[in-house]
Amino acid sequence: MEIVNRISQMQKISREWRKEGKTISLVPTMGFLHKGHLSLMEEGKIRGDYLITSIFVNPIQFGLEEDYGDYPRDLEQDCKLAKEVGVDVIFAPSVQEMYPKGFQTFVEVEKITETLCGICRPHHFQGVTTVVAKLFSIVNPHLAFFGKKDFQQFVTIKRMVLDLNWEINVIGMPIVREEDGLAMSSRNKYLSQDERRSALSLNRSLDLAKKLYQEGIRDTEKIERGVKRLIGEEKLAEIEYVKICNKVDLGEISQIKSEALLALAVKIGKTRLIDNCELGGEEQN
Amino acid sequence: MEIVNRISQMQKISREWRKEGKTISLVPTMGFLHKGHLSLMEEGKIRGDYLITSIFVNPIQFGLEEDYGDYPRDLEQDCKLAKEVGVDVIFAPSVQEMYPKGFQTFVEVEKITETLCGICRPHHFQGVTTVVAKLFSIVNPHLAFFGKKDFQQFVTIKRMVLDLNWEINVIGMPIVREEDGLAMSSRNKYLSQDERRSALSLNRSLDLAKKLYQEGIRDTEKIERGVKRLIGEEKLAEIEYVKICNKVDLGEISQIKSEALLALAVKIGKTRLIDNCELGGEEQN
Repeated sequence: MEIVNRISQMQKISREWRKEGKTISLVPTMGFLHKGHLSLMEEGKIRGDYLITSIFVNPIQFGLEEDYGDYPRDLEQDCKLAKEVGVDVIFAPSVQEMYPKGFQTFVEVEKITETLCGICRPHHFQGVTTVVAKLFSIVNPHLAFFGKKDFQQFVTIKRMVLDLNWEINVIGMPIVREEDGLAMSSRNKYLSQDERRSALSLNRSLDLAKKLYQEGIRDTEKIERGVKRLIGEEKLAEIEYVKICNKVDLGEISQIKSEALLALAVKIGKTRLIDNCELGGEEQN
Repeated sequence: MEIVNRISQMQKISREWRKEGKTISLVPTMGFLHKGHLSLMEEGKIRGDYLITSIFVNPIQFGLEEDYGDYPRDLEQDCKLAKEVGVDVIFAPSVQEMYPKGFQTFVEVEKITETLCGICRPHHFQGVTTVVAKLFSIVNPHLAFFGKKDFQQFVTIKRMVLDLNWEINVIGMPIVREEDGLAMSSRNKYLSQDERRSALSLNRSLDLAKKLYQEGIRDTEKIERGVKRLIGEEKLAEIEYVKICNKVDLGEISQIKSEALLALAVKIGKTRLIDNCELGGEEQN
């Protein structure tokens, strides 16, 4: 496994592989890898000839008040895990390498990013789409894998690729959970024991929503109310949003007719967690 | 020469050429070709194995009050001229093909676009960078040619390519002028005989600026004043801006020390014309 820090070096490797007719998989990450990331890499390994994982804590997707500085980092451990799963190249550029002096170009997806997390994190998705656009042209992959815990990120990137006519297959992978149901996230590290117990209410509330749906309830407000009530019982939890929306463009719906997404963001103490589940229809890949 | 309307077809052709190891030149245009466009194509023909010209009047780079509907179009004549100069493929997509329902992704270069034409045409450059981003991923060229009459467009696209790490060589070509000095533009067609005579003041004013520079004047305000006075003598002319700036990032300067750009925009009747010249230093390619 090679560790590459330079953009030009990464582009050179990718160009060689393309010349050989090889299929390239990319798993973009901010590092501090967990089983969720590893599941993306395993899939990338199966579907591509070569697997590249980028590790880059992207400053421009964090708000000023957010946890960019504190975001957990452990490159040594990440390299160990990536090697075990068969990653061929880790691309780990510096901030200076990605955003040199004078940098001023941004990619923006509009409507899809103006709801859910986009409301509380106004420049977040612009930061995500910009860095992913850069990673895509640096790595030039055929396939790119994203976890569906960040469902809004996943559909936003799919939209960007479609709108800008990039020939990249953007693949969304199922949420991976801890044994107790908590969705895997690098930010789970922030949780105290009490907070961690509270955080389980997120997954429990999704189970409730699925149960209500299975009982035949299609009114989105009714389900949202049930979810909010359940999480609201936790003293440490502060709900940011609980929203059922159209799964493709995240548009508002009042009734679940076909494929819908229940997405939620909750602060547990100081830690902001997100989770979601699909209601009705098939899983989207 | 082939005329291609479909994005997927264009991508397929380009993919084949890339596989053969050929160098692809792209000249993006809005059609109604004149000698300025043809000079780009001639250069593209020399420097690449294959030459693609796109013809697309891009609605999202026009303001609501601007001339999108009236912009001159003549695809038949364009094809004739392109064929003569050796273009291999004309890519002429429909608006629907480029911006299907649901389109919502934009590429924005910030600082460089906030001066000169960016002040009077607030969304213009976002429209330009977005369509060029799309054309670049559809055509996947090695080389792309732009006229330096639209100097701000040229440096904006250079910046975008640098910031987003695209491996495309963006080449700026000298302004081509009519025999009487008027810079070639599809919009010259709008001018009446009187207006056309007035419009010659633009090029005359650039000559004056060069003369002042050669005489040793380095104070930008002094030169700008001279230029404004000369154009101001024309009754039909209404100056939008006359500005000497840094040639690389279009930043303000008060003294010409190295490479500078004198750029101007003037309305002659209802027709908005732009022109520019470089002062000091070498020509930028």
